[in-house]
Amino acid sequence: MTPPIISEFGFSKLHLIDYISLVAATTNAFNGALLARRPDHYRHFTVAGIIILAYAGGIGGGIVRDVLVNKIPSPLINPWYLILCLAAAVLALVVDYYSAQRFKDGLFQFMTAFTLPWYAIVGAQAALTAHLGYLAAVIIGIIATTAGRWIIDGACLVVPKQLVRGEFFITSAALAGIAYVVCQQVGFPVIASTAIAFLLGFGFRLTAQTLGWEEWEPWEPAPLTEGEKARKKLGEGLHAEFKD
Amino acid sequence: MTPPIISEFGFSKLHLIDYISLVAATTNAFNGALLARRPDHYRHFTVAGIIILAYAGGIGGGIVRDVLVNKIPSPLINPWYLILCLAAAVLALVVDYYSAQRFKDGLFQFMTAFTLPWYAIVGAQAALTAHLGYLAAVIIGIIATTAGRWIIDGACLVVPKQLVRGEFFITSAALAGIAYVVCQQVGFPVIASTAIAFLLGFGFRLTAQTLGWEEWEPWEPAPLTEGEKARKKLGEGLHAEFKD
Amino acid sequence: MTPPIISEFGFSKLHLIDYISLVAATTNAFNGALLARRPDHYRHFTVAGIIILAYAGGIGGGIVRDVLVNKIPSPLINPWYLILCLAAAVLALVVDYYSAQRFKDGLFQFMTAFTLPWYAIVGAQAALTAHLGYLAAVIIGIIATTAGRWIIDGACLVVPKQLVRGEFFITSAALAGIAYVVCQQVGFPVIASTAIAFLLGFGFRLTAQTLGWEEWEPWEPAPLTEGEKARKKLGEGLHAEFKD
Repeated sequence: MTPPIISEFGFSKLHLIDYISLVAATTNAFNGALLARRPDHYRHFTVAGIIILAYAGGIGGGIVRDVLVNKIPSPLINPWYLILCLAAAVLALVVDYYSAQRFKDGLFQFMTAFTLPWYAIVGAQAALTAHLGYLAAVIIGIIATTAGRWIIDGACLVVPKQLVRGEFFITSAALAGIAYVVCQQVGFPVIASTAIAFLLGFGFRLTAQTLGWEEWEPWEPAPLTEGEKARKKLGEGLHAEFKD
Repeated sequence: MTPPIISEFGFSKLHLIDYISLVAATTNAFNGALLARRPDHYRHFTVAGIIILAYAGGIGGGIVRDVLVNKIPSPLINPWYLILCLAAAVLALVVDYYSAQRFKDGLFQFMTAFTLPWYAIVGAQAALTAHLGYLAAVIIGIIATTAGRWIIDGACLVVPKQLVRGEFFITSAALAGIAYVVCQQVGFPVIASTAIAFLLGFGFRLTAQTLGWEEWEPWEPAPLTEGEKARKKLGEGLHAEFKD
Repeated sequence: MTPPIISEFGFSKLHLIDYISLVAATTNAFNGALLARRPDHYRHFTVAGIIILAYAGGIGGGIVRDVLVNKIPSPLINPWYLILCLAAAVLALVVDYYSAQRFKDGLFQFMTAFTLPWYAIVGAQAALTAHLGYLAAVIIGIIATTAGRWIIDGACLVVPKQLVRGEFFITSAALAGIAYVVCQQVGFPVIASTAIAFLLGFGFRLTAQTLGWEEWEPWEPAPLTEGEKARKKLGEGLHAEFKD
């Protein structure tokens, strides 16, 4: 993922997994810019701000992944990431300008399914390349896939999508990562493993969206009573407990 | 903290400090799940979301610690972390279901004291192993101890506990870290240093909670006047200043 | 940036770029403490909390920078960072106590211009030292410059300044980084490159502040209609689309 740099501007020879990584970055950047313009995320961002959020979505996951496997992040080294993510952000702004809200919502939902498996695949491969175990490969795949969304949601002061009902966001990423690791260990070439992992992750996510499958939200916690709302010292709590 | 991997699933031989690290992760994961269910932090999390927040509390500090000492994070490599944190999250949900709010608040407060010193100890040891200075050991201990809480508070859109009144959260972590570093330099075995650091950190925190000791909150900043609320260019500000 | 440690307390021999890095950390810590006390950021922080936010502003950028170039962060190793940032935080609190709001706002605005180029310079140099490309040097300079502000804004539950109108915060950092990289490649000594990059970044930012230049904020997204507010399954959306 960090090929030797062959020019002082940082351009370098790419392998198949680098191209998949570029697809992951570009599609996620497109999605990040769309997300920044959704009314539930929009916070009077400037054009520069929308581009930064596109980068957060596009290369955030790749940076976190490479930091976790203890490498200099490839998206910071290889200028193609920066160029393609910028192009994706501009395209998203153009689409945003010319489309109705309903079309954009559908496009965004479709794109969250389409963009999801790529980072899971590249993350899993990065962990396998670093000779980590199978479980680590799946976990790093999940983190790489979802870190960008966490950063964007945080910046928009929204609870991260990973934590609330959302058509099996994490599960889809896990499925794609597991499929890739299994295919790789069975001995499939990278391109076949990628195709299978993509179809599984994309298909599951799209099915969940279409049929409205969602993660289970447990019982509501009881609201605090008036007495409990007053912040108590542990000492007072123990006293109160005693008297009963 | 990153022992050689002896199987493709990532299980590996553990040393004493790894067991302490597992205790740190597991107890903090339990606490993270309880925190996610507290009414002041609850944001309609799914079961998957609560488990993710338990992981954030449980292995967040360990990941940050290992990134800072420039290693692949052990909690991502060693599957025991992932298994035990999941078990802790499930246990916390069971406790949450069967207990009254008052009991849970007491348990949570007690657990924040109990869980606190472990990460300070492991963080300090990680820094000493990396041949950093004493001060770096204490600082990395503090960061490892409190990073998980920062991540959870951020995801719940709550101001991080480190920054507001909270019974000497940071100070307790610093005390445990300092005690461990001193004991280690004096030549105590790891188990004795750990015991002393734990008792000091746990004892101080529990005392602070019981007696209601809290960090000092300084004077309130003056609210903005109507004129100041209007955002001003620096140029206008200089003009206004001039006229007076 | 991580000179060999020459004492067990971590003090070590410094080079010119280390002094610039210390200036970056100290001035940004001063600014971070002022920011934490501004009414739009203040969240009932304790004195300890304000000091932590000063550290976040002061060494946050340096930590992120060194993690990205895959080194142990120098601000955690070299105790001077910790000592000077603490002094800056205390000084900021003293200034905050004795000054009127209008003076503080002017000082804060001036300081955001003054503190900005230093981290861009040190970040670019760190990337060049790590033999990354020119583009990576500028990008790492920008990230190092602005990461601290992102952390502080997040902790204060405020949308990061990078994303909203704010007198070319990012652009000023980019200018300083580009100037430094160009000067270094032309063969200027570090001190001359630093002076030129500082004057350019500081001058541009101060001009933008004085004249009220700001990033362009695009058209407002259309608010959701009542029908759109109800969360829809993708399936239902497709059905609705069909019927029209």
